[in-house]
Amino acid sequence: MGFARNAWYCAAFSAEVDDGLLGRRILGEGVLITRDATGAVRAIGDRCPHRFAPLHRGVRDGDTIECPYHGLRFDLTGQCVLNPHGQGRIPGAARVAAYPVEECQGVVWLWPGDPALADPAIISDLLLVNRGERPPVSGHLTMPVDYRLVLDNLMDLSHAAYLHAGTLSPSRAKRESNYDSDNRSVRVNTVMRDVPTPSSQQLYFASPRGDYHSDIEWIFPGSVRQRLAMTETGAEADAGAVTRNVHLITPETETSTHYFWIHTRNRLMDDASIDDRTRAILSNAFLTEDEPMMQACQENMGGAEFFSLKPIYLETDFAGTRCRRTMERLIAEEKAMACHSVVPGPAAPAETSPA
Amino acid sequence: MGFARNAWYCAAFSAEVDDGLLGRRILGEGVLITRDATGAVRAIGDRCPHRFAPLHRGVRDGDTIECPYHGLRFDLTGQCVLNPHGQGRIPGAARVAAYPVEECQGVVWLWPGDPALADPAIISDLLLVNRGERPPVSGHLTMPVDYRLVLDNLMDLSHAAYLHAGTLSPSRAKRESNYDSDNRSVRVNTVMRDVPTPSSQQLYFASPRGDYHSDIEWIFPGSVRQRLAMTETGAEADAGAVTRNVHLITPETETSTHYFWIHTRNRLMDDASIDDRTRAILSNAFLTEDEPMMQACQENMGGAEFFSLKPIYLETDFAGTRCRRTMERLIAEEKAMACHSVVPGPAAPAETSPA
Amino acid sequence: MGFARNAWYCAAFSAEVDDGLLGRRILGEGVLITRDATGAVRAIGDRCPHRFAPLHRGVRDGDTIECPYHGLRFDLTGQCVLNPHGQGRIPGAARVAAYPVEECQGVVWLWPGDPALADPAIISDLLLVNRGERPPVSGHLTMPVDYRLVLDNLMDLSHAAYLHAGTLSPSRAKRESNYDSDNRSVRVNTVMRDVPTPSSQQLYFASPRGDYHSDIEWIFPGSVRQRLAMTETGAEADAGAVTRNVHLITPETETSTHYFWIHTRNRLMDDASIDDRTRAILSNAFLTEDEPMMQACQENMGGAEFFSLKPIYLETDFAGTRCRRTMERLIAEEKAMACHSVVPGPAAPAETSPA
Repeated sequence: MGFARNAWYCAAFSAEVDDGLLGRRILGEGVLITRDATGAVRAIGDRCPHRFAPLHRGVRDGDTIECPYHGLRFDLTGQCVLNPHGQGRIPGAARVAAYPVEECQGVVWLWPGDPALADPAIISDLLLVNRGERPPVSGHLTMPVDYRLVLDNLMDLSHAAYLHAGTLSPSRAKRESNYDSDNRSVRVNTVMRDVPTPSSQQLYFASPRGDYHSDIEWIFPGSVRQRLAMTETGAEADAGAVTRNVHLITPETETSTHYFWIHTRNRLMDDASIDDRTRAILSNAFLTEDEPMMQACQENMGGAEFFSLKPIYLETDFAGTRCRRTMERLIAEEKAMACHSVVPGPAAPAETSPA
Repeated sequence: MGFARNAWYCAAFSAEVDDGLLGRRILGEGVLITRDATGAVRAIGDRCPHRFAPLHRGVRDGDTIECPYHGLRFDLTGQCVLNPHGQGRIPGAARVAAYPVEECQGVVWLWPGDPALADPAIISDLLLVNRGERPPVSGHLTMPVDYRLVLDNLMDLSHAAYLHAGTLSPSRAKRESNYDSDNRSVRVNTVMRDVPTPSSQQLYFASPRGDYHSDIEWIFPGSVRQRLAMTETGAEADAGAVTRNVHLITPETETSTHYFWIHTRNRLMDDASIDDRTRAILSNAFLTEDEPMMQACQENMGGAEFFSLKPIYLETDFAGTRCRRTMERLIAEEKAMACHSVVPGPAAPAETSPA
Repeated sequence: MGFARNAWYCAAFSAEVDDGLLGRRILGEGVLITRDATGAVRAIGDRCPHRFAPLHRGVRDGDTIECPYHGLRFDLTGQCVLNPHGQGRIPGAARVAAYPVEECQGVVWLWPGDPALADPAIISDLLLVNRGERPPVSGHLTMPVDYRLVLDNLMDLSHAAYLHAGTLSPSRAKRESNYDSDNRSVRVNTVMRDVPTPSSQQLYFASPRGDYHSDIEWIFPGSVRQRLAMTETGAEADAGAVTRNVHLITPETETSTHYFWIHTRNRLMDDASIDDRTRAILSNAFLTEDEPMMQACQENMGGAEFFSLKPIYLETDFAGTRCRRTMERLIAEEKAMACHSVVPGPAAPAETSPA
């Protein structure tokens, strides 16, 4: 399969990153994430080129990181700037990758591909509700499943009426959906008319029934933004209790996936108890309902490629299937470009004495 | 290796199956076992053809089962009878396997092969002692070993004098055995003369010494029936304290095995405390003596095929070796027939509205 | 990769072996180690040739071992001497390997290769301090890493100033090293001048500063002997507090390694509390600092061969690299000799009645 490399992925929430050393595996590679002296986020390879130790277990000294095994030091461009041993010679290859990173909308975005192609302008607007200083409700899980099963899950929300019946979605209710896609994104707009208000929305929508609007959009490679709204029957979605949610899907390895989620709403925005309950409801759903189901499906697939098992195709599979086919096409294009190798940034001048 | 598919396997004890949804892996495949409205046992594939969710985690409604992930419904022939989404179209391939099942002698027998060949008449008589309403002593273990190691274990009971010395068998006693086999079965009849009564038989045989009779028979593919008797020295086996035992060996996967066992006896049949002690003794022997030994052997084999390691051949290996060779021959014949694909039963008429 | 077989490996400490049955995996093979009636150490294959049971779980009777599964008996040359079943025929192949073993310097040395080549004269002197009756401080760990990563670790002790900073080594101090090697050994002699005394040496060296001398030598295949000394600044190493340490590295499997270590010193030799503290310090360093670091490096290597990852080469890598290249050369020579199959010792006369 492989991964799409020339793309922005959520590597962390902004709030997770300080001047400490955060180690995280992304697209199979160890990445060290930190902030430099100016507060800017920096990301470099987390594997010392000497004996392959994880640099994030090392010690930070100013804007250098000392490898925990033999003490080589690297600056935040990934360049080795100190060999404390012998004559102190620093081999030309003594560097690790430097990853382009951008920080916006509370998210650290990382580009694992060719740095020359990293254009911050293509980072998509997450369309979150502005909560001012108040942070959104959010969470991070690492799921032991292929990231494409997670995209399947999100892009066919007909599952919510069964797997999350009554909590995130009206139970077993009839959906009307429209589908749409372009080169790098897929959309599903759904409405369920005159249905019972799910318990998660009862926190901020008072009527026991109404219309349930669910619009979801996948944007290559792993951003899924969603507007969920409960309205009085017959009303427009934005007239009701609207939540703007984002699911950011980043492959950790071939068989595991980072799942970052963010929730905002337009009602009772300052009620911390609703934040707490929403966090609990969503964490519970993702961790105890979605994750075990995806894991069970993956086990039932017995290691086979998804399409080789000839899954039946329902009309509700339009979006998920389009997602998979779009990923396949863009990964193939990337390979054809033959320019997806990681080219680290320019080296900092080598220091010659220990700090 | 592969498995013999055109054969009856124990899938469960009758007492395990009610109108709930029992999921069990058999010959590598997920199987869902339940009873229909008439009380008859039914077994269908446990992998939804849509996104491969395990159906046994779903919800039952009458004689249909709702997939827990997206709500497709299947009847007990394996046919999808409801797609609750969109226009409700049901693709032709929306079905799972239906397995022939038979229930007799307290056992649910399942036929994983060509349904057209499933003949209940070839299910063998387990020769249990009739206990009337009183259920036999029984147990079910799932052992992390290749099923052929379990058959080796059972068909060479010379191990009992060492691995179960003094409990299930006289310790290190001399055996006299006769061997016999035909196309689909292998027999070993053994007697040990004037030996101490093992502790398991002391529960219902009073003399401290006597003759120990052990007759065991394997019947393709996984039924092992056994008569163990203690008699006064020189007596016929059936004149003594006779136990009729059955070991039903069903591959779970290539490397794990369901082990169902049943014990009956002709003495003190109504004494529940002897049932309890027998259950404890046998569970202990199978779980803490046989299973760890087989697992250690499997580990010592390092993933190699059994015969490739050139095991030495002793005369006590006649039955186990014959068992392996018979399995190999019958599996090869099945492959040659090229008719071992699962053909599910006829589809039920498709429903068009949600239940 | 493979292993060097025609070589002496530490299989156990002498003190671990009595007339009980010690099972240990060495170079991927199960080995049973025990003492015979004369007190001599004997080692035979730990896999019964009948059904591959581990013999060390069996029962000892005199100088025979009864297989725990079916009761075959083997003598300490590996020959099957009793088949208790049927006519008692013993097949010609009913034997397990007998390994040459030598016991000296508190260590049981085992030769996994061609017995004809096993020359005790090539066992190297460990150069331990003679403690008379008092046993040295020692320990045994099994590390879940390729043995070559353990040799890399030992042969580049520049890591100690970082991974064991202040405890086993002065923190981040400048080293002066000389390197030397021949056909089957590699040496590194290092001195750090006027450095703080590490806490482990403070137990028997009173000055807060001094010269830290570290001389280490690898001898094919897995013996690493080390002299660590703290002296007054400018003094010769042997004039100071000298410890003589040995690290004996024996592959357990392709991905795990036995690590035996022995520590002796020339100061306060009879102070048991210093023994205890030293044991705690060294165990802690090896188990909580070295092992996790090597394991992290191995994980970061993702299953690739070491040199295929193009590790950068520093002058401190002379010894570790020479070690790896020497191992490769000697393994290749062994394969070229085509005489590395295990030839067991001569058979004992077969017994014909049960013991």
